[in-house]
Amino acid sequence: MFLVLRHGCTPEERNRLVKAIEAAGLSVQISEGHHRIVIGIVGEEDRLRDIPLERFPGVEKVVPLKSPYRLASRDSRSSDSIVGVGSARIGEGLVIIAGPCAVEDDDSILLAARAARKAGAHVLRGGAFKPRTSPYDFQGLGERGLKLLRDAGREAGLPVVTEAMDTRHIGLVAEYADMIQIGTRNMQNYALLKAAAETGRPVLLKRGRSSTVTEWLCAAEYLLDGGNPQVVLCERGVVSFDTAVRNVLDLSSVPLVKRLSHLPVIVDPSHGTGRCELVAAMARAAVAAGADGVMIEIHPSPERALSDARQAIVPEEFARLVPELFAIREVLQRSAQPVLP
Amino acid sequence: MFLVLRHGCTPEERNRLVKAIEAAGLSVQISEGHHRIVIGIVGEEDRLRDIPLERFPGVEKVVPLKSPYRLASRDSRSSDSIVGVGSARIGEGLVIIAGPCAVEDDDSILLAARAARKAGAHVLRGGAFKPRTSPYDFQGLGERGLKLLRDAGREAGLPVVTEAMDTRHIGLVAEYADMIQIGTRNMQNYALLKAAAETGRPVLLKRGRSSTVTEWLCAAEYLLDGGNPQVVLCERGVVSFDTAVRNVLDLSSVPLVKRLSHLPVIVDPSHGTGRCELVAAMARAAVAAGADGVMIEIHPSPERALSDARQAIVPEEFARLVPELFAIREVLQRSAQPVLP
Amino acid sequence: MFLVLRHGCTPEERNRLVKAIEAAGLSVQISEGHHRIVIGIVGEEDRLRDIPLERFPGVEKVVPLKSPYRLASRDSRSSDSIVGVGSARIGEGLVIIAGPCAVEDDDSILLAARAARKAGAHVLRGGAFKPRTSPYDFQGLGERGLKLLRDAGREAGLPVVTEAMDTRHIGLVAEYADMIQIGTRNMQNYALLKAAAETGRPVLLKRGRSSTVTEWLCAAEYLLDGGNPQVVLCERGVVSFDTAVRNVLDLSSVPLVKRLSHLPVIVDPSHGTGRCELVAAMARAAVAAGADGVMIEIHPSPERALSDARQAIVPEEFARLVPELFAIREVLQRSAQPVLP
Amino acid sequence: MFLVLRHGCTPEERNRLVKAIEAAGLSVQISEGHHRIVIGIVGEEDRLRDIPLERFPGVEKVVPLKSPYRLASRDSRSSDSIVGVGSARIGEGLVIIAGPCAVEDDDSILLAARAARKAGAHVLRGGAFKPRTSPYDFQGLGERGLKLLRDAGREAGLPVVTEAMDTRHIGLVAEYADMIQIGTRNMQNYALLKAAAETGRPVLLKRGRSSTVTEWLCAAEYLLDGGNPQVVLCERGVVSFDTAVRNVLDLSSVPLVKRLSHLPVIVDPSHGTGRCELVAAMARAAVAAGADGVMIEIHPSPERALSDARQAIVPEEFARLVPELFAIREVLQRSAQPVLP
Repeated sequence: MFLVLRHGCTPEERNRLVKAIEAAGLSVQISEGHHRIVIGIVGEEDRLRDIPLERFPGVEKVVPLKSPYRLASRDSRSSDSIVGVGSARIGEGLVIIAGPCAVEDDDSILLAARAARKAGAHVLRGGAFKPRTSPYDFQGLGERGLKLLRDAGREAGLPVVTEAMDTRHIGLVAEYADMIQIGTRNMQNYALLKAAAETGRPVLLKRGRSSTVTEWLCAAEYLLDGGNPQVVLCERGVVSFDTAVRNVLDLSSVPLVKRLSHLPVIVDPSHGTGRCELVAAMARAAVAAGADGVMIEIHPSPERALSDARQAIVPEEFARLVPELFAIREVLQRSAQPVLP
Repeated sequence: MFLVLRHGCTPEERNRLVKAIEAAGLSVQISEGHHRIVIGIVGEEDRLRDIPLERFPGVEKVVPLKSPYRLASRDSRSSDSIVGVGSARIGEGLVIIAGPCAVEDDDSILLAARAARKAGAHVLRGGAFKPRTSPYDFQGLGERGLKLLRDAGREAGLPVVTEAMDTRHIGLVAEYADMIQIGTRNMQNYALLKAAAETGRPVLLKRGRSSTVTEWLCAAEYLLDGGNPQVVLCERGVVSFDTAVRNVLDLSSVPLVKRLSHLPVIVDPSHGTGRCELVAAMARAAVAAGADGVMIEIHPSPERALSDARQAIVPEEFARLVPELFAIREVLQRSAQPVLP
Repeated sequence: MFLVLRHGCTPEERNRLVKAIEAAGLSVQISEGHHRIVIGIVGEEDRLRDIPLERFPGVEKVVPLKSPYRLASRDSRSSDSIVGVGSARIGEGLVIIAGPCAVEDDDSILLAARAARKAGAHVLRGGAFKPRTSPYDFQGLGERGLKLLRDAGREAGLPVVTEAMDTRHIGLVAEYADMIQIGTRNMQNYALLKAAAETGRPVLLKRGRSSTVTEWLCAAEYLLDGGNPQVVLCERGVVSFDTAVRNVLDLSSVPLVKRLSHLPVIVDPSHGTGRCELVAAMARAAVAAGADGVMIEIHPSPERALSDARQAIVPEEFARLVPELFAIREVLQRSAQPVLP
Repeated sequence: MFLVLRHGCTPEERNRLVKAIEAAGLSVQISEGHHRIVIGIVGEEDRLRDIPLERFPGVEKVVPLKSPYRLASRDSRSSDSIVGVGSARIGEGLVIIAGPCAVEDDDSILLAARAARKAGAHVLRGGAFKPRTSPYDFQGLGERGLKLLRDAGREAGLPVVTEAMDTRHIGLVAEYADMIQIGTRNMQNYALLKAAAETGRPVLLKRGRSSTVTEWLCAAEYLLDGGNPQVVLCERGVVSFDTAVRNVLDLSSVPLVKRLSHLPVIVDPSHGTGRCELVAAMARAAVAAGADGVMIEIHPSPERALSDARQAIVPEEFARLVPELFAIREVLQRSAQPVLP
C-alpha cells in the first residue's frame, strides 16, 4: 500500500500517520518527490484493514497494491476452474444454457426443455421465483415451478439452473436445482451469497447492473470464502444512458475476467440486450470474445410468455444459432494464437 | 395504452393483435397516420398485464398511459404523507437523522448519539448489519449492535433507524429499531421489501445505485402494497462515470419525486458524495432542493471508524451545519412561491 | 405524433392545443381512455417542428411517430449502402483498417503501413491532428503528418483515413486523405459535420462517447443532408462507471444500427477497450456481431508511441488476428440464417 | 510518479524500465513490498510525457502524482479568480445570467432582456448559433441573432453571453458578445478552445455531458494555456441512465471544483434538468451548494419558443425566484463556517 500525502501536509500530520502504521506492526518507506511525499507501507496490508488511513489529515490518496479479492484471483490459482453441472463442465468447452425466463406451466416448460436439448443445449434454465420491478407482475410459481423445472429437465436429460431470491427459500431451491442462480439485483445481497455458499451447489453469479468487474469478483469472493468453489460468472449487461437496448452487454468483461480470475464466465445475451432481434448476433459475439458459454432465453410461443417476452427467441431460431456458436468456438481453438489473450 | 405498428405491418398481423386485445375484454381505436398506424386500447389496461403485446409481430412500440405504481402515486393521494418515527414527523418539517455508519462499541455510539441530539438531530442512525463489498471487511456487530444502538438512542432521547439485510433477521431488527432501513443494494430485493412491509415499522427506502425514479417508486409500491404506508424515500446518489466522487447525488430526484408521489423524501449527502469535505455543501443543497430531511454520517473520531470513515464528519462540523439547514428551510417557507414546484 | 394529456387537463387547455395544431394545417383525433386523453395528430409532422407542444399546459407527454433522421433510415433506402475508399468497399465484405494512433515520423508510419498491408489490411489509419485531453500532450504533426501518411499509404498501396478537427483545416485534410474521420469528441460538432459533407470525401463517423444510437444517426444525417452519401459509422465504446476499461464497447449497436439504417458500421476495439490485451478478443467479437469492418491500432514499437500506447498491438499479433477475423466472417456467411437479424 | 510492477515481472523487464527512466534524466527508488515491487520516480515528471511507461512489459499500473492541469489548479493560485463581464464580477458575489435559449426575433429578445434586468439578472444570454441534434431543427439566426442580442443587452443595460460553435465564426461572436460560451458538445473541441482563448474575451466553459471534473479542468487549461485567464466553469448536468430528466445535474461538482481550482463555477439548472418545473428547485440548490452564479433560461411565451421550450421558465417565475437565491446566499455568508469547505 502507498499513501500520497497532500501538498502542504505538516510534519505533525505525517508523524501521526507513521505512528498509526507502525502501531499496527508495519514499517514505512518515505519518498520525497518534487511534487508530493509518498509513504510506502511494508508488511501485511491486512493489518491496516480497520484503520481508515484515507481519513487521516494530510492524506491525499491511498493506493492499495493488493486486489480486494484473493480466492477469485488468478494469483491464487493459475489454472482455469471447471464447474460441473450434471454432465456439463463449464470452463472446459462451450456450454449452452437455454430455457424460458419463467416456468409458466408443465406444457411450455417441457416443450422448451425438449427444444433446448434437441438443439444441443447442456443445461435447462427457468425461473420459479421471479424478481419483478412491479409488485403487480407475475412473481413465479414458487415451489411448483421448481418441481416442473426439475421434472422437465429429467424428462429431457438436462440439469437445471434456477434463481434463488430469499435466504429462507434457498434450501428449497437447492433441493430441486443442479445450479443456483444469483440474479443481477441480488449480486450484492451478501446474506443470500453466504447462504448460497452453504448449499454446496454450483452457483451462477450474474453481474450486478451497475457493478464494476472488481465488485463482481468481490461478490464471487463471498461464495469462495464461504467454502463453495463452484462459481460461474455471468455477464448480462450493465446500465446505460441509451434506452435503445435494455442494457449494454459489456463483452470486454469476458477477456478481462479471464485475465483477472480463474473462474469460468458465460454471457446472457437475452437480458444483455432485452430485444429478441439482437440476441443471435450478441450470442455469436460472446463466443467470439472467449466466453465459456451462453445462456439464452427461448420460448415456444413468446406471445404467451408471462415475463420478458420481448427478449425470448423461438426454438427454431435457437436451433439454427447453436451450430454457428460451435463453429465460431472452433475458429478460436484452431487459432495459432491462444484464445485468451 | 397505445400501440405503434411497424411500417409495413401486414393486415394479418394487425388482426391478430386486435383479436388478442378484444379477447381480453378491451376495445381498440385505430388511427392511420401518414407514417404509422396507431392502435389505442380502451378499457382497463391491467387485463393486458399477461399479454406481451410488444412481442407480437408488427408492433414497433407500446406506449403505456398508466404509471406502473399506483399507491405511491400522487394520483392515488394528493396530500403529502407524513411518517412518524418516535416524535419526529417526516414530511412535515425538516428532519435531521445523524449517527455513525456502523455501531462499533458502546462508547462511540453513545458519544455520537449525544452529539447528534445536542446539535438538533431528531433520529439516530447506525448500522448493526453492514453490507460490505469485500467479505473481509467489518460486517457489523449484529444483535449486539442493535442493542447498543437502541440503548444509545434511549439515553439521548432519540428514536433509531438501522438497516436490515436479510429476511431471517428483519423481525429482530424490528424489535430494536423505530425505523427499518432498506439499503441501496437491496432496493430490488423484493423478498426483503415484502418482509419489511410485514413488520409494520416505518421503512426508510434508499434509492438503488442505478435505479430510475420509476423503479424506486415501484420498490416503494412493494411496501405500500404489502400494507405498510409508512415509507420514506432516501436519495443517496447514483452511479457515475466520474470517480472523483463515490456517487453522483441526484438532487433533481427530490422535486421530481415530490411531483410524482405523496411520499416524503430525504437525502443522504454522506453516501451521496463519499467525501467528508463535500457533505456540508450537499446537505445545504438538499434542503434548498426541497428535501424533507437529511441523513448525515457523523463520527466522534473518524480516524478510528471501522467503515466509511472517508465520508463521516465530526460532531463539531455537524453542529455548525444544522442551524444553516434550518435557515435555508426558512427561506423556502417564507417564499411567496410554493416550495414544491 | 401523439399527445398524452395530463390527468386533470382542462377543456380550455385542450382547446388551445387543438387550435395550435389546426392552425399549422393538421387535424386531430381525440381518444378518451380510462386514464388519460390522447390526441392523435394526422398530417405532416414537420409542420409542427417549431411549435413546442410539450410546453403547452395540460400536455404530459409527446410521442413522435417519425424518426428524427430520414436519409440515414432504412425507411428511405432498404438496400445496404456501400462506401468505396480506394479499392476497399465498406459494406460489402469485411474491411480491415489499421495503423498507428498518430503519425509520428516517416520511419514508423512506413513500417506500420507495410505491416498493415502485409497482414491483409485494406486501409491505413494515422492521426495528424490529435485531440488530446491535456494541452501539454503531443498534438500531432499537422500537415507534415498528412503528407507522411499519404506517402506511406501510396508506398504500401493502401488508401488512408485521418481525422479532421477544425473547419479551417478540413480542406487540407481532404487533399491528402481518401477518407475523413470525425472523432468521438466532435460527433456533435455540427459546423465540422457540415464542412465534412462539403468536401465530398467519404466520412468515417465515430460514435460520441455518450451518444445514443439515435443521436449518432442524427449526426450522420447532417452529412447525408449536406449532400454526402458516403458515410461509414464507427462504434468505439461509450462512457462507463467501470474504470477497468477506458470505454465500454457497445457491440449491440452493430446489429441495432444494421436494422435502423442502411449505412455500414465498423468497430474500433482499440479505443473501445483502451487496453492492448483485450483488443484481439473484441475484434473477433465485433466481426461475430456482424460489423462491416474493424479499425485497429498497431504500432511497431508501442513503447515508443507518442499517444495511446496502452491500446496499440504489435504487427505480429495483428497478423495472427486477421485470418481469424475472416474465418469468423465466413461462419456468418455460411449460416443458413441471414447474418443480420 | 510511481509504477507498480506486475506480480512476476522479470529482472530484464525491470531493468529496461529503469534504463528508460534514467535516460530521460530522472532517478528511481525501488521498494520491494510483500505483494508488489513499486518504482518511485524522482525528478520532473514532464520529461516522461512522451514515454508510455504503462506499455512497458511488467508494468501493472502507473500512478501519477501531478495533476494533468496546472494553471487551473489551486496549487498554481490559492486565491479565487474573479472574471469581469461588463459590470458583473463572477466569483465575487452571486451572479445571475438569464435569457432565452435562442434569439428568435427582436421583440422576444427585448422582452426577455427587460424582464431579466428587472428581476435582478446581471448578464443576458441568448443563442445565435445553435447546436441541434437534428439538422432539421432551428439552427439560430447567426449574425443577425448576435446583433439582436447585443442591442437588447444595451437597451436593458446588460452585458451578453452567447455560444460560438465554429473557429471560423468566433471572431464574429467576439465582436458582439461580452462573453463567449463554449457549449457542452464542444468542451473537447480543442481547436475551438484555442481560438476562444485568442479572442481575449471572457469564456463560459460548459461541462461536457460525459466529462469528468478532471477533463473539464483540462479543457479550461487549454484556455488558460492559450493566454486567457478569464474562464468561468458552468455545470450543466451529465448523462444518466434515467430518462426522467434530460441530464443529471451534478451539484457536487461545485464544491469539488472550488477545492481543486481557483476558477469560478456557475450552474445551469435549465439544461441540467430539461424540465421547467424543476428549474427553481435546482437553482436554489445550486446556490446552496456554493455556486458563484446560475444561468437560467427564461422565455416570455414558452409556447412559442423555437428551441428547448420544455425547460424555459416564464419571467414571473424568475422574478419570484431571484430574491430567494440571494436569501440562500446570505445564509451561506452569515455562516460561522466558511462557505466553501
